[in-house]
Amino acid sequence: MARDKGPRRPKAETPKGFRDYFGSDVTERKAMLDRIAEVYHRHGFEPLETSAVETVEALGKFLPDVDRPNEGVFAWKDDDAGWLALRYDLTAPLARVAAQYRNDLPFPYRRYAMGPVWRNEKPGPGRFRQFYQCDADTVGAPTVAADAEICGMLSEALEEVGIPRGDYVVRVNNRKVLNGVMEVAGILDPTDPSRFETERGIVMRAIDKIDRLGEAGVRALIGEGRLDESGDFTKGAGLSQEQADVVLGFMSARGADGAQTLARLGELVGSSETGREGVAELATIAELLDAQGYGPDRIVIDPSVVRGLGYYTGPVFEAELTFEIRDEKGRPRQFGSVAGGGRYDDLVKRFTGQTVPATGVSIGVDRLLAALRAKGRVQADTRGPVVVTVMDRDRMAEYQAMAAELRRAGIRAEVYLGNPKNFGNQLKYADRRNAPVAIIQGSDEAARGVVQIKDLYLGAKLAAEATHEEWKAQPAQFEAPREDLVAHVRRILEGG
Amino acid sequence: MARDKGPRRPKAETPKGFRDYFGSDVTERKAMLDRIAEVYHRHGFEPLETSAVETVEALGKFLPDVDRPNEGVFAWKDDDAGWLALRYDLTAPLARVAAQYRNDLPFPYRRYAMGPVWRNEKPGPGRFRQFYQCDADTVGAPTVAADAEICGMLSEALEEVGIPRGDYVVRVNNRKVLNGVMEVAGILDPTDPSRFETERGIVMRAIDKIDRLGEAGVRALIGEGRLDESGDFTKGAGLSQEQADVVLGFMSARGADGAQTLARLGELVGSSETGREGVAELATIAELLDAQGYGPDRIVIDPSVVRGLGYYTGPVFEAELTFEIRDEKGRPRQFGSVAGGGRYDDLVKRFTGQTVPATGVSIGVDRLLAALRAKGRVQADTRGPVVVTVMDRDRMAEYQAMAAELRRAGIRAEVYLGNPKNFGNQLKYADRRNAPVAIIQGSDEAARGVVQIKDLYLGAKLAAEATHEEWKAQPAQFEAPREDLVAHVRRILEGG
Repeated sequence: MARDKGPRRPKAETPKGFRDYFGSDVTERKAMLDRIAEVYHRHGFEPLETSAVETVEALGKFLPDVDRPNEGVFAWKDDDAGWLALRYDLTAPLARVAAQYRNDLPFPYRRYAMGPVWRNEKPGPGRFRQFYQCDADTVGAPTVAADAEICGMLSEALEEVGIPRGDYVVRVNNRKVLNGVMEVAGILDPTDPSRFETERGIVMRAIDKIDRLGEAGVRALIGEGRLDESGDFTKGAGLSQEQADVVLGFMSARGADGAQTLARLGELVGSSETGREGVAELATIAELLDAQGYGPDRIVIDPSVVRGLGYYTGPVFEAELTFEIRDEKGRPRQFGSVAGGGRYDDLVKRFTGQTVPATGVSIGVDRLLAALRAKGRVQADTRGPVVVTVMDRDRMAEYQAMAAELRRAGIRAEVYLGNPKNFGNQLKYADRRNAPVAIIQGSDEAARGVVQIKDLYLGAKLAAEATHEEWKAQPAQFEAPREDLVAHVRRILEGG
Repeated sequence: MARDKGPRRPKAETPKGFRDYFGSDVTERKAMLDRIAEVYHRHGFEPLETSAVETVEALGKFLPDVDRPNEGVFAWKDDDAGWLALRYDLTAPLARVAAQYRNDLPFPYRRYAMGPVWRNEKPGPGRFRQFYQCDADTVGAPTVAADAEICGMLSEALEEVGIPRGDYVVRVNNRKVLNGVMEVAGILDPTDPSRFETERGIVMRAIDKIDRLGEAGVRALIGEGRLDESGDFTKGAGLSQEQADVVLGFMSARGADGAQTLARLGELVGSSETGREGVAELATIAELLDAQGYGPDRIVIDPSVVRGLGYYTGPVFEAELTFEIRDEKGRPRQFGSVAGGGRYDDLVKRFTGQTVPATGVSIGVDRLLAALRAKGRVQADTRGPVVVTVMDRDRMAEYQAMAAELRRAGIRAEVYLGNPKNFGNQLKYADRRNAPVAIIQGSDEAARGVVQIKDLYLGAKLAAEATHEEWKAQPAQFEAPREDLVAHVRRILEGG
């Protein structure tokens, strides 16, 4: 490691927009991802771990007219390999892999990937430049059975990590139905797809904002235009009232059950071939899911799912958590979306020229973990180790032997290895470690063949709320024969 | 994703020096690291996951006199955060964390870290620019009990992942003993540490090469110099025969047991204070390990461990696998080192100016995994899923229901989702997936309420070696009632 020559010292700081994860932050996320991986594995998905670094060319962010690749990715020029960049998602590397190994992989290729991605965005509060993604995709399966499988698997994954049935819903929509609706509204001409592109762009952006703007706002945007609170006017798509009714009818087409929803959608798309295909795909998905036991309490056809409709080419899905949490101001609100995905049929095309069908889902790792924490469903054990204190530096071997004995019994344990002079510091350390138990043995106890066992959780509880009588009746610290050390600690840990 | 405008397509290639990991490559490594993490956790170590990106300044690679940071790291200039780089190991980020959170972390801070690191080196065969490291370190513990703990924990970790006792040894040495030996040899003056720096440098580099050059080569290098096979002469340290005897005596001081080794080392370092301190530290480590049941069949004091002596400031350790494997030319050789570490007492100093004692170990993830594979000790299950084939596109829901039923019974299963037209392709797919079982149900079987179950492993075995009679007696494919599907598949998977 190179040293600074002068007196100036380097700053010990995480770079702006990056963060460190400590202890249970790491294990809780890992426990959640392990459970998701288990579900994916059971569905025949194979793990894939690509390198963090890709060529800028393969990532598809390369702009030939600028010297340096555009913002959005962290990129640098390498002497051996040209422009390189950190991956910004897990889909672009999958596209590269599907093309690179197209003759070696079994297709359809089901794969899952979990790992960090990097975004070169302005760092801000709560906005990080490195975060986890967790994706599952099927490449090379044209059938919507693949989409249905992804939806079912997503449902299983949510339940597996601890979101009970009833607290989530996977909603399914289809871009093709929207295309059909746009045909009926007269802003998509199947014989000339480039016509009305501007109008459709405005419509797509407008319906993406329905959560924020409400129906009236969307209606203004797809009609004559909208004046927002700040006085800015956004030009509209110029659709008539009747045209707007068709588009908005789509988003509110969800009926009392799947059959009713499909019937309404069928009416809306009329004779549009694409639209009818889209409705038929949704019907097939519903039928396949039903056969596997995914009822409408878990997965529903819901045309109000609009996020990603601009990006995907066929079925689109979104998982929402339906329970309420309190926001930072204490107001109740629905937890909302934790995963989304859909079909994108031109993943590999930019590499090979061939269209390869693909469908997949991405779980928002941080959001789902936050939801589990909000529900008290985090499964990792945040309990610290049993701390064996050091009363007598010369008997370190004996303290180490105690810790080893506890560990052999499967109990997490460590010896205090700081300066043992100040015993108070040792107990403070045990406290900061969230240790459940401290073991104490001075020379006097050693001579008598006993140890002091201190139940730190009980001690904290008693200190907070006990009367003097309770304190005496249920001491948080007691003496025990050395040979019974493991048994006593185990009893405390098991809450006995 | 930006699209290419012209006809030129991007290359679907991993950047030079990087690689992708598929399926069991991922799960086998993960299974190994999970087991190691379990051992570290039991010893009271906490996981730490720092970001992949650090400031160049914090990494300690910043050279103020060049515009661009030196080679060795992947670095780029960021508008918001200055020069950034990918971490090249897990120790530099630990140093930054220990300094940054010095008022918040409980000290001694025991942490483990597992993850990729990046080296900007010329890519070459078998030389990768991204690879895994797996480290455990204790920061803030001056006592050699911390070093002993690391050695014991390393021993536990090796056994836990599947290296049996007797197939490995953790060897321990101490830089202070070498310093004492250099004092006795007259090339280290405790009252003027800068004297003989050149000579000590040559000696350090020479003994680091003992495996390659042998005793005679080292003796030449620390004496008058050495003429190698190519005719190049390397200038020696100029030590006399007697001085060289002292240095070489150090490396061969290992005796029949620990006590004899320590006695020999005590003689070698004579009255050197540092040397005696080093010997006493080794004696303490041996005593502590002995008290925890780590005998010389697992951990030994061995002064021939020289790797890293130049870097570390106190105890140094190395884990070697002692069983033989065949090299690429079929010759037997010892597997060799899979982990190394030691005490480095100036980790945090460059940030804070304060000396903070630290000790730790790094396991070579790829090497240890290769060793486990060589020993047939890899624990991940590389078996593919049960593949439900599609004979009848219209009955996809029924095939999906079969897969769902198998999964609910804990059996990994999937439906073939490619084009079902060519049944041979479906069986080829099952083969490439390493599927143990294929399920087949045409309309005829469906009408009769049965399925065909094909034992693919048995089929492959029969195809390779069976006589016609055996083939008939033990059919690899049989018909079973639909309702017995799960029971039959389970029997096959359990080898019944």
